[in-house]
Amino acid sequence: MLRVGLLGLGNVGSAVVRRLQASAAELAHRAGMPLVLRRVAVAHLDKPRGVHVDRDLLTDDAWQVVRDPEVDVVVELIGGIEPARSYVREALNLGKSVITANKQLMASRGRELLEAAEQAGADLFFEASVAGGIPVIRTLKESLAGDRVREIVGILNGTTNYILTRMDEEGLSFAEALSEAQRLGFAESDPTEDVEGHDAAAKLAILASVAFNSRVVRSDVHCEGIAQLTQREVTYTKEIGFALKLVAHARDLGEEVEAAVYPALLPRGHPLAAVRREFNAVWLRAEAAGELLLYGRGAGGDPTASAVLSDLVAVARNRRYRAHGRVSCTCYHQKAVRSAADRVLAACLVLRVVDRPGVFAQVASAFGEEQVSLHSIVQQSRGDEADVLLRTHPAPERALRSVLHRLQRMPVVRGCSPLLRVIE
Amino acid sequence: MLRVGLLGLGNVGSAVVRRLQASAAELAHRAGMPLVLRRVAVAHLDKPRGVHVDRDLLTDDAWQVVRDPEVDVVVELIGGIEPARSYVREALNLGKSVITANKQLMASRGRELLEAAEQAGADLFFEASVAGGIPVIRTLKESLAGDRVREIVGILNGTTNYILTRMDEEGLSFAEALSEAQRLGFAESDPTEDVEGHDAAAKLAILASVAFNSRVVRSDVHCEGIAQLTQREVTYTKEIGFALKLVAHARDLGEEVEAAVYPALLPRGHPLAAVRREFNAVWLRAEAAGELLLYGRGAGGDPTASAVLSDLVAVARNRRYRAHGRVSCTCYHQKAVRSAADRVLAACLVLRVVDRPGVFAQVASAFGEEQVSLHSIVQQSRGDEADVLLRTHPAPERALRSVLHRLQRMPVVRGCSPLLRVIE
Repeated sequence: MLRVGLLGLGNVGSAVVRRLQASAAELAHRAGMPLVLRRVAVAHLDKPRGVHVDRDLLTDDAWQVVRDPEVDVVVELIGGIEPARSYVREALNLGKSVITANKQLMASRGRELLEAAEQAGADLFFEASVAGGIPVIRTLKESLAGDRVREIVGILNGTTNYILTRMDEEGLSFAEALSEAQRLGFAESDPTEDVEGHDAAAKLAILASVAFNSRVVRSDVHCEGIAQLTQREVTYTKEIGFALKLVAHARDLGEEVEAAVYPALLPRGHPLAAVRREFNAVWLRAEAAGELLLYGRGAGGDPTASAVLSDLVAVARNRRYRAHGRVSCTCYHQKAVRSAADRVLAACLVLRVVDRPGVFAQVASAFGEEQVSLHSIVQQSRGDEADVLLRTHPAPERALRSVLHRLQRMPVVRGCSPLLRVIE
Repeated sequence: MLRVGLLGLGNVGSAVVRRLQASAAELAHRAGMPLVLRRVAVAHLDKPRGVHVDRDLLTDDAWQVVRDPEVDVVVELIGGIEPARSYVREALNLGKSVITANKQLMASRGRELLEAAEQAGADLFFEASVAGGIPVIRTLKESLAGDRVREIVGILNGTTNYILTRMDEEGLSFAEALSEAQRLGFAESDPTEDVEGHDAAAKLAILASVAFNSRVVRSDVHCEGIAQLTQREVTYTKEIGFALKLVAHARDLGEEVEAAVYPALLPRGHPLAAVRREFNAVWLRAEAAGELLLYGRGAGGDPTASAVLSDLVAVARNRRYRAHGRVSCTCYHQKAVRSAADRVLAACLVLRVVDRPGVFAQVASAFGEEQVSLHSIVQQSRGDEADVLLRTHPAPERALRSVLHRLQRMPVVRGCSPLLRVIE
């Protein structure tokens, strides 16, 4: 049998326990052995919960779970870097396999922990750390092991995708859509992590590491959020045939990799453009398979539990064959991470300018002087002012930022959107 | 090292060889050992090919590959049941692992071959047999091992999806779209296998077996094609908000499973409705993960080679840990397959009727007499005749077929579409 120790009994932990209880026979068939809950660490022993756990199994000391000799595998559902990292390290050092849903931990300390697992001959699985119920980590590590992934574009944050969907479909402002998302439980009361792109950036660091076989950490991922976006950008970019999404975008450029989170325009025919509301998706381009899309629920107790339980079955299967570590750290390259300023991408800006002769030439000159060439321009008069949407050809980020600074200093420019990248 | 013997050097075989040559270092990293091409069986030794293979490696006798003691793993890319089955059996009996892209073989003899692999302690992988470059077999067997899949809806045939896309978007007739598909290489000169749904049915048998842990064979899959469809069905069903697709549909009903291929209506908001042209996709509903979609290229040399090479890496990883057979046959249930006549589904019919008083009552009575209740009706006059679209609530297939027979016998009914199922 495989004896499971659980750290954390919140939303995900309760769903894991519920499914261990309700699907015990099915899981045993698949795992080749029973999966048995042995010990559970919780913050408050007496808190009422939506799942029944024998009081004997509960402890408020996580170390008791980690060090219990009757626990074979530790499931870490606490989140954050410390003390989670210490628990995971200790479990691995004791030769126990570990399953974690912790994106912060894997995005910043993944190398250290995977090395510890390798040394201990244990498994460290983290399917649940990215995109909840969408099976993307194992797909990259195993199903695409014979291919080479060159590019990833992900919608990895349900909160921001919900907000942008409502701005797009219902014409809500950012603030209205955010407060609706909070009311429906799709956004936290402090939405910073989601709205500023930090949550997606941690997930992208993990995905890029696995996809490109080269370690990318959270601090490598340039990150811009959606709090600056207004209905104006959504409307104008829609008119020229694009959907505005917060994307996590990474590319393998051969010698270097790059990874960033930013608001970007996707052609309406792109499979990601149809990803609505709180759903997540990962689009990728592989050398042989071509383009692939994986779509599903990126958060929630049950979808995340699905990933945790599949990892548990994998640990059990490895245990049967003494094959722990069969697929461990796959970062055998050490590629440099290209700095944000050096990236080359097409972009789009929406400006509000004073509507009088010569203004447009002045705006266009900001692009010309930075050697950024324009792909298309749409101008619409608003009385004394005009809205102008400018789409560039691919250009170095450095040059695009210089254009932006020039425009922001021009007295005739009354308003300027953030830089919107264009995914083609 | 892992020494590879190849049966067949057509489109897929050539792509496999090309990638073994071009990505040797990457593949060795991932596999933990070099993957070396040892022997290749071809039909004609002197045929010119798009890939370079040492003449010494070629043979026109497949048995020489299968029985070569220096071949560790046999990749079967011949297709069809015999002699492919005999080669695969012999390779497994000799303790070699086998990778196959052969849907006919796995859909009809899967149990026998997986049992032979288990007895021999060898791997038998078949990722390439379903949906080419979309990694769906391993996703079901491993990434969803902790979950329970309840329903699958697949677009598993690129030819028919291309044809229906062109009928939908360009208003082509079935015959026009088919001949265009043939011109572009998306359809064979004899398109029967694709158009009648046989190709999708074989793939669905494999998918359903893996998803529901209970063997479904090709002959269990009820099968209807698209050759009877006209522009009329496409147009009317579009007007009521549906996309018409050839779907492969399977459900786990608890005690029983059901599996069928038929033309069906998908709501325009359904993720599968956006799958255009020759692309494939698998939508599924799992208990915990909820709905998932996997989308990509279902055919072609490179996408299929991606699946074959990933299976090769999996064999090598198992070889390193002596873990061959780690995930073998997963059909531990023996569920009955529900007969086509007993299925319960909503349906839609498009009729052309004589336009005079009393006709509609007569048409409606055919439904009432079979206890099939109507969900909605759209009628449009065409001079002396009228087109009527009738959508039912879920009803037993047996009753729907009786309605169809009643309608076809009515003199006032001048034309009647095939039964179109409704996926909701």
